[in-house]
Amino acid sequence: MKKVGVALLGLGTVGGGTYRILQNNHDAIMKNDGIDLEIKHIIEKDVTKAQALGADLSIVGTDIDAVVNDKDVQIVAEFFGGIEPAKSFLIKCLLAGKSIVTANKEMFSKNWVELEAAAKKGHAGLYFEASCVGGVPIIRTLTESMQGNNIRSLMGIVNGTTNFILSQMADDGLAYSDVLKEAQALGYAEANPTADVEGFDSMYKLSILSSLAFRKKVPISVIHREGISQVSKEDIEYGKMLGYTLKLLAIAKETDGKIEARVHPAFVPDSHPLASVKGSFNAVHIVGDNVGDIMLYGRGAGDLPTGSAIVSDIVFAASQPKPKYAPFKNVDKINPKDFTDNYQCKYYLRLNVRDQAGVIAKITSVFAKHNISIQSIRQVSDGETATVIFLLHKTFENDLTKAIALIEKLDCVVSCDATVRVED
Amino acid sequence: MKKVGVALLGLGTVGGGTYRILQNNHDAIMKNDGIDLEIKHIIEKDVTKAQALGADLSIVGTDIDAVVNDKDVQIVAEFFGGIEPAKSFLIKCLLAGKSIVTANKEMFSKNWVELEAAAKKGHAGLYFEASCVGGVPIIRTLTESMQGNNIRSLMGIVNGTTNFILSQMADDGLAYSDVLKEAQALGYAEANPTADVEGFDSMYKLSILSSLAFRKKVPISVIHREGISQVSKEDIEYGKMLGYTLKLLAIAKETDGKIEARVHPAFVPDSHPLASVKGSFNAVHIVGDNVGDIMLYGRGAGDLPTGSAIVSDIVFAASQPKPKYAPFKNVDKINPKDFTDNYQCKYYLRLNVRDQAGVIAKITSVFAKHNISIQSIRQVSDGETATVIFLLHKTFENDLTKAIALIEKLDCVVSCDATVRVED
Repeated sequence: MKKVGVALLGLGTVGGGTYRILQNNHDAIMKNDGIDLEIKHIIEKDVTKAQALGADLSIVGTDIDAVVNDKDVQIVAEFFGGIEPAKSFLIKCLLAGKSIVTANKEMFSKNWVELEAAAKKGHAGLYFEASCVGGVPIIRTLTESMQGNNIRSLMGIVNGTTNFILSQMADDGLAYSDVLKEAQALGYAEANPTADVEGFDSMYKLSILSSLAFRKKVPISVIHREGISQVSKEDIEYGKMLGYTLKLLAIAKETDGKIEARVHPAFVPDSHPLASVKGSFNAVHIVGDNVGDIMLYGRGAGDLPTGSAIVSDIVFAASQPKPKYAPFKNVDKINPKDFTDNYQCKYYLRLNVRDQAGVIAKITSVFAKHNISIQSIRQVSDGETATVIFLLHKTFENDLTKAIALIEKLDCVVSCDATVRVED
Repeated sequence: MKKVGVALLGLGTVGGGTYRILQNNHDAIMKNDGIDLEIKHIIEKDVTKAQALGADLSIVGTDIDAVVNDKDVQIVAEFFGGIEPAKSFLIKCLLAGKSIVTANKEMFSKNWVELEAAAKKGHAGLYFEASCVGGVPIIRTLTESMQGNNIRSLMGIVNGTTNFILSQMADDGLAYSDVLKEAQALGYAEANPTADVEGFDSMYKLSILSSLAFRKKVPISVIHREGISQVSKEDIEYGKMLGYTLKLLAIAKETDGKIEARVHPAFVPDSHPLASVKGSFNAVHIVGDNVGDIMLYGRGAGDLPTGSAIVSDIVFAASQPKPKYAPFKNVDKINPKDFTDNYQCKYYLRLNVRDQAGVIAKITSVFAKHNISIQSIRQVSDGETATVIFLLHKTFENDLTKAIALIEKLDCVVSCDATVRVED
């Protein structure tokens, strides 16, 4: 029987969940996987958290060096969140030859290159399944199951808070601010919701996932990011009428060797597998040149779902005869030439116009001048002014921005009230 | 650079797809995974297939011993289908220390114990991701990502032919026999469709998937099997009215240490993630005690999707420092005590009754005597006779069978036209 010593850094939500799974599944893991996992250290200031879990208090402390210097510890699982002290602690552990397992998407996405270098130097492993989409095995799928594919696109709902908010807005016809309050009351959104609702959390995850999909490091600096705080219930309703569902998507595509990566609200057709992902559930949709469309769906957060991914990584790490510090070879550098921000999208455009003759002709002639082709036009309300919704074929963002500036100056146009990208 | 010699047994649909992926992705696999895969032998009687692919004809032959005796072959991928000669060939290869990769669900599910023993004896690996659900990485997920879970249930749409037929019946209101003809014309169904439509293919896959989910060998002999040839368009329509979608499901659950495994048509609520899996797509839904609900979705068949799984297994096999012949320890035997066929289901029941007073009272009193509890009753048509649909709470199959026999004898009942299990 292989004995493996584990240290847990932090006993918050996921740390606590991991502790419980390791206790409850210890014997099953021993039987099925032949590994005897023993928790040797818990680094946690708040001893009451360890008490609440019934942990052996003699292994609870605050000194990371006790972990680093314990030759019986092979794996360190980190749950601090934030950049420091997580990063410094983990680099110390890696250099000391201890493999690390982390759920910390922000720290990991911002310091992957440095962590990988430390792991290589220390002959240690680097495992991060829990950093993206909780218990959904998306990292293992990208690293261990897609070797026969060039991945064309990766598109995911990777944040449960925003998906809960958008689902509630769609189901109940409520405004963003009302649903946010409800989500905060239910514990689905933080008191300060910025990291979720402005798309930062999705951006960290997209950086990790797209790097694996395209086997190139995709840093957060190349990711276009917009959140959902400007989404209106009107557009969700109009979208429904047109057969679209609004989601906050993390999108990455590779075309002719160039990667585009972006996080923003987007309409997907109701028939798209991502459209039926409701509430706090997450899903990632991948298109590979050989495998075609696949999608992985599940809980993106929570103590036990994320703890499940952490434990899976601990067992996976403990089973490797040689630590894995990099899922793919030749991807230890960031190369600015790999990326483009000059991408094309389909668009939904909502205009408020005066209800008079010739309006559509004037607007469409501006589109024509910018080579923007129209998929459909719908006039959705009457009165002194009218609402007109355009669905536009793929166009460069730059062209659209110029066209909208001209359209807004037309006498017959009161305002351009919304532009939403469409993915299908 | 690690050089790995590969032999392909058979150049049919999936064999041809695999050949093409190995050719096209050779350099990418070398760059990303550090493995130089070389096709050393192709065993195929029909040389024109090799010609059509542009293969080097000097490596094409029919002698399996050429593969067995070639010390430069480490991995053998099998695409013959059927039991023999696939089984004998693969056992020879395993005993000679060559790892095998197979998509052959029938041969594998019927001979797993024997293949595993041969692999163990020959110090070779046994890889079978492609045997279930094409390119969807369900095997890798069950073996490498669920170590922190006791899986409670696995429920899948694992056959594209039947899902295509049921989807068309639902969308177009057509009868089974008409859609089957269409499916045959389109190439979605074989001229002899029995293996698909009677649930054999799903049964083989369920045997493999449930064995991995519960870490116990689940032989096909313990799987209850029904196909879709008796499904009527009426029941699909009535199901729609009640908010249910009809699917051919492969279901396995573990309760108190006992496994139930069954393949049959079943209603799932429209809100269930499996309900939106349309056409020839497949999906597997898993509930783990920690991870909660997860679902994997994608193409279950086809040259390139299944070839993608084969190539992923070849690279995975080539990357293991020590061949893996068993995904879990201590599961090399079949234990009859692990299984039960005494399971409970919810039911949909369609009766044709005379339109007279007291009918419902008589029927429901039979249910009451058998401890069968009613969830809802709906009378859906009028005339001389009426159609009554019952949704029943969970009941033992045995009790339901007895109750139906008595109900059919009632004067007021013309016939019991359909019973369909309901899963939610």
